[in-house]
Amino acid sequence: MIENKARKETASRSARLDSVFAALADPTRRAIIERLSRGEARVTEVAGPFHMSLNAVSKHIRVLEASGVVERHRKGRDHILSINTRSLDEVDGWIERMRRYWEERLDAMEHLLRELNKDRKLGPKGRKHGSR
Amino acid sequence: MIENKARKETASRSARLDSVFAALADPTRRAIIERLSRGEARVTEVAGPFHMSLNAVSKHIRVLEASGVVERHRKGRDHILSINTRSLDEVDGWIERMRRYWEERLDAMEHLLRELNKDRKLGPKGRKHGSR
Repeated sequence: MIENKARKETASRSARLDSVFAALADPTRRAIIERLSRGEARVTEVAGPFHMSLNAVSKHIRVLEASGVVERHRKGRDHILSINTRSLDEVDGWIERMRRYWEERLDAMEHLLRELNKDRKLGPKGRKHGSR
Repeated sequence: MIENKARKETASRSARLDSVFAALADPTRRAIIERLSRGEARVTEVAGPFHMSLNAVSKHIRVLEASGVVERHRKGRDHILSINTRSLDEVDGWIERMRRYWEERLDAMEHLLRELNKDRKLGPKGRKHGSR
């Protein structure tokens, strides 16, 4: 039962990663996130700088809302958009994990290169001096 | 001219982000990256754990190669896959930038909450004691 629950959680986390990564795979949507990272804003404020119709921007906003990256609340007549940082934390966590792996590998490679360089500097000539 | 070059570079970086994020928006492709983060591997080794045809896995690998996340080289008869860390660094850089923004905002919010809490603890009664 517990295993089943864990599997369901992993599946839903994976589905969330799918939709967040898909949401980020568009320059307009990334620009909207960049704007909202500096502070919440009204839909019209967000749409302002884009050379496209309000309707087109609204579609992008809906994709961001569906992925959970962007949240909307009402303040009187205004629709205010803000970032749900938790959703991006999850993506960040995944990339961070991958990065740890590959940094370990890069460190190992760097170490190897240093060792090879040392050998080369000592060289056939250097080795004579270096042999103790 | 320089401005034009800078614009082109920004556009191509943006296109790369598009395709890397789209490549990451799939659980099989993320699992392939996780596998390769632990070390390079042959195509058949990568395909092994998946309950799908080699052809289906190969399609996912091609998407990863097109995005630049995965590279392929030949060692004799084998096709060896490895991760191109630079492509993920770029994505990581974007998320990192967003995170800096929102952490500043979260810090500011936390500070505000602490201040509000202090006020509440002092309260109408506490304030008498607290006023110096």
